[in-house]
Amino acid sequence: MQLEFLGTGAGQPAKFRNVTSIALKLLDERNAVWLFDVGEGTQHQILRTNIRPRKVEKIFITHLHGDHIFGLPGFLSSRSFQGSDATEPLTIYGPKGIEKFVKTSLAVSESHLTYPLEFVEITKPGAIFEDSTFKVVTDLLDHNVNSYGYRVIEKDHPRELLVKKLQDDHIPAGPLYGQLKAGKTVTLPDGRIVDGINYLGEAKKGRIVTILGDTRKNNNAVSLAQDADVLVHESTYGKGEGRMARNHYHSTSLQAADVAIQAHADKLLLTHISARYAGKLAYELEKQAREVFERAHVVSDFEEIDIPIRK
Amino acid sequence: MQLEFLGTGAGQPAKFRNVTSIALKLLDERNAVWLFDVGEGTQHQILRTNIRPRKVEKIFITHLHGDHIFGLPGFLSSRSFQGSDATEPLTIYGPKGIEKFVKTSLAVSESHLTYPLEFVEITKPGAIFEDSTFKVVTDLLDHNVNSYGYRVIEKDHPRELLVKKLQDDHIPAGPLYGQLKAGKTVTLPDGRIVDGINYLGEAKKGRIVTILGDTRKNNNAVSLAQDADVLVHESTYGKGEGRMARNHYHSTSLQAADVAIQAHADKLLLTHISARYAGKLAYELEKQAREVFERAHVVSDFEEIDIPIRK
Repeated sequence: MQLEFLGTGAGQPAKFRNVTSIALKLLDERNAVWLFDVGEGTQHQILRTNIRPRKVEKIFITHLHGDHIFGLPGFLSSRSFQGSDATEPLTIYGPKGIEKFVKTSLAVSESHLTYPLEFVEITKPGAIFEDSTFKVVTDLLDHNVNSYGYRVIEKDHPRELLVKKLQDDHIPAGPLYGQLKAGKTVTLPDGRIVDGINYLGEAKKGRIVTILGDTRKNNNAVSLAQDADVLVHESTYGKGEGRMARNHYHSTSLQAADVAIQAHADKLLLTHISARYAGKLAYELEKQAREVFERAHVVSDFEEIDIPIRK
Repeated sequence: MQLEFLGTGAGQPAKFRNVTSIALKLLDERNAVWLFDVGEGTQHQILRTNIRPRKVEKIFITHLHGDHIFGLPGFLSSRSFQGSDATEPLTIYGPKGIEKFVKTSLAVSESHLTYPLEFVEITKPGAIFEDSTFKVVTDLLDHNVNSYGYRVIEKDHPRELLVKKLQDDHIPAGPLYGQLKAGKTVTLPDGRIVDGINYLGEAKKGRIVTILGDTRKNNNAVSLAQDADVLVHESTYGKGEGRMARNHYHSTSLQAADVAIQAHADKLLLTHISARYAGKLAYELEKQAREVFERAHVVSDFEEIDIPIRK
């Protein structure tokens, strides 16, 4: 599980930061990539990574501002023409209006997709997706349009059967293994009675990744980020610019750090960096956040952050 | 007057060719820039040029395929925020549907422009713009959606008064100069009778630039390009791929050259190059066209072509 940042700038593209898009790479977990926001030029950025568009299974849109959605029609159209035509379905989650924008763009341009496209527009806070391995919960943030945060919850990994240990103890393979894996006690053909619990590895907790849209500091952000392995938070402004952040419905680096502290998040990634913090100036934002939350980091375009399995 | 190519690729962005956009720089002529098509990432390309978005006075859309329009909403939004807010009006010309696409995109994203935006949707062939210095004529081409070509006609430059020659002949400055400039014969205070015609420079013919949307070879293209200083023609395919070009409603390099010959155009610029002609392969297309029309050239992203004043 890795996060790859495709665009880390605010508002408009700049030479070294494109507008927002974030890839959550779940290749080991579900052979898929999820995108969070698709600003203009996201497909161009993807060209410079090893992400294959057909692997993009879900797209989560935080809010409808142009710098977060104007790359969608182009990405969706181009996804149809990667090598042989892509047929893997794709689902877009986002605020009301996202379906109209995408459908109008595709209809006007007569773009015919080779794969099924579905929409899930958010009507209320809570779970918007759940299957056997992942659950995604959303809630409203505090911006001048409806802006959402997404809490991606990996379900706990089932305890794995320690096959090597079974072999060492001369327990023969077969249907018994299934019962042992389920933690049951079974009687072997040779009369031994063994408890499956003794042949199961450590339980591994699932990870939590929280990705927020543009927002002022707010309590829903804290709830969404509770105990997260990684919190991705905007940091459009810096220390001493709280007033400006408030007026423009954005956050400062310190406010983002406060959210991380209150939520007991493990790591804070700062993105949506204003062009005013060009080049090395961005590290000022990081330094400011680190004064109160040590594990803060300002991300750059194309930076990849590994999210290790919890011990 | 220069053409600057912002995107010269076909269909999807590639690493070294973005999707279509062409800037006609009329800075000396009217302190303005006109864009022809705005594929996704055009605003990103403009960042790497000296084009100032507020100078973009008109945008002409050839057809509504995504690789020609998906950069419009982002460009229009960003144009509002170049330094101080831009207030210069902008007009978009294009096929029916362009207004719906742009207005839906801006409305859904709650993008509020700081300048007036007007639309002129093409309803019939002919002049769609005319003022004292320029006229633009459009006509339908042959593509699988309505695709238009634009013939930009610079009006003839008025003959200039040769002030140096007047001074050399001791003809005093004053209201007389106006009459001489109009080509009239006047009597000087000293009794001499002079003919204005003798004090006027060479008439300079206006230039003609023809920019075509995606198309099969067709007669309207020839009419639009008649005696053009520059013809910009797509060349999605190469020699021997006429059947493929026909099936996909595109042209080969040779067909583009044929149009240039029939139209007696002075120069042919080939663009909309398929990713199959990556890198140096594109020059094959140029070579093929040059076999029949010497002044053919395959353009690259960011290439600038000067269009000198006619003698």
